[in-house]
Amino acid sequence: MTASKTITAAIVVIGDEILSGRTKDKNIGYIADFCTSVGIDLSEVRIVPDVEDEIVAAVNALRARYTYVFTTGGIGPTHDDITADAIARAFGVGISENPEVIEMLLTRIKPEDLNEARRRMARIPHGAQLVKNRVSTAPGFWIGNVIVMAGVPSIMQAMIDAVADKLETGVKMIIETIDAGGIPEGAYAAGLSEIATAHPVLSIGSYPSFADGKFKNQIVVRGKDSEAVAAGVAKVNAMLAALRAAHKGA
Amino acid sequence: MTASKTITAAIVVIGDEILSGRTKDKNIGYIADFCTSVGIDLSEVRIVPDVEDEIVAAVNALRARYTYVFTTGGIGPTHDDITADAIARAFGVGISENPEVIEMLLTRIKPEDLNEARRRMARIPHGAQLVKNRVSTAPGFWIGNVIVMAGVPSIMQAMIDAVADKLETGVKMIIETIDAGGIPEGAYAAGLSEIATAHPVLSIGSYPSFADGKFKNQIVVRGKDSEAVAAGVAKVNAMLAALRAAHKGA
Repeated sequence: MTASKTITAAIVVIGDEILSGRTKDKNIGYIADFCTSVGIDLSEVRIVPDVEDEIVAAVNALRARYTYVFTTGGIGPTHDDITADAIARAFGVGISENPEVIEMLLTRIKPEDLNEARRRMARIPHGAQLVKNRVSTAPGFWIGNVIVMAGVPSIMQAMIDAVADKLETGVKMIIETIDAGGIPEGAYAAGLSEIATAHPVLSIGSYPSFADGKFKNQIVVRGKDSEAVAAGVAKVNAMLAALRAAHKGA
Repeated sequence: MTASKTITAAIVVIGDEILSGRTKDKNIGYIADFCTSVGIDLSEVRIVPDVEDEIVAAVNALRARYTYVFTTGGIGPTHDDITADAIARAFGVGISENPEVIEMLLTRIKPEDLNEARRRMARIPHGAQLVKNRVSTAPGFWIGNVIVMAGVPSIMQAMIDAVADKLETGVKMIIETIDAGGIPEGAYAAGLSEIATAHPVLSIGSYPSFADGKFKNQIVVRGKDSEAVAAGVAKVNAMLAALRAAHKGA
């Protein structure tokens, strides 16, 4: 781990059920939080259907660009679980039944129940390392810079736990949130833009939410240098205080 | 609207706040449900940061490929709201202050408060049509096959309402969900694969969820032909009944 290095990641969510709206994804937000907490910059997410060409294209585009690619979904025993084959094709490697996974499956499945379909879960691309986890005996796998995980959130989370210590991480992002209270975005936008321009190492955002007919705004100052973040936050607070004072005076 | 036509869509979610995990996206699932309900096949989603090059690349890749592209986020008054400029660049058109939007903004903002930042919300790419809505006086816009919407869910939803009647739609997907009860995926995977192979016009998926140490599986049969869906559902039910009977007999 080099303190000054930037480590990036992307996610490929594989699943018709997400695109149809039937299942609401819970993995993106979880992986995003995880990445932020360990100092990995999540930089892009793609949701693709259960179509091999689409999975291959997304994985190959993203693995060339980012330090890590996490995939979720499509590693079960049914015919629509095609992720392992797609990943093997993306890497141009073979795929076959992994004896170690067969052993793992046999700890929970009786030998007479280990049918053809269940054996599919043991198909692992050549050169991949298994991502064993505490929830499911069917592992994920890690090949090159791509980490292939289940779509079921509890299993996906256990797989993240299993790889967390092995991931290279960068400097953690420091994120400070400042409540703008009742001050509308349009009143502080110019001042905020000036602060953002003066602090190019910071990423400063303004996030409105809308409820009961009113906007509630939050300003977020992000950066990897604690002094720069503190300086940015101080300027934002000073700007908001000046706007409040001007409003009271008006 | 041609009944046999396939209408597709993609979403580009624009926002550092989603990638950092700070905000959990609620728009993808909403737009997915909307698309399914009206007969549009949502085919891909990308989440990109507040970086103009990334927005331009994603929008141009997707608008060439799908009937519609919906974007969410980045159309407010602050410096990090760069979607309108990115879309203008993606289309190679100019962008300037739209007098109609200024009028709209003035219905809620006093003339003396219509500062430079708020006027940014009136910047609309040339050739775009406004997407007015009942929640916010700042409109979205529609240019080519791209519909640019707010990131705040209540406003985004109002913008979807505003365009819904104008979208071309295809045949609605019929989605039938069959509870597999306690039958594990590995027990029905082979039978399900046979059914899927016999009915290529159907998309048949198996979706496990995991809670309290147990899997609960649902089989979903999707298709646009009601007779084919009914035939597929009947076969799945017959298969599950046979598995249950075999299990009882064992």
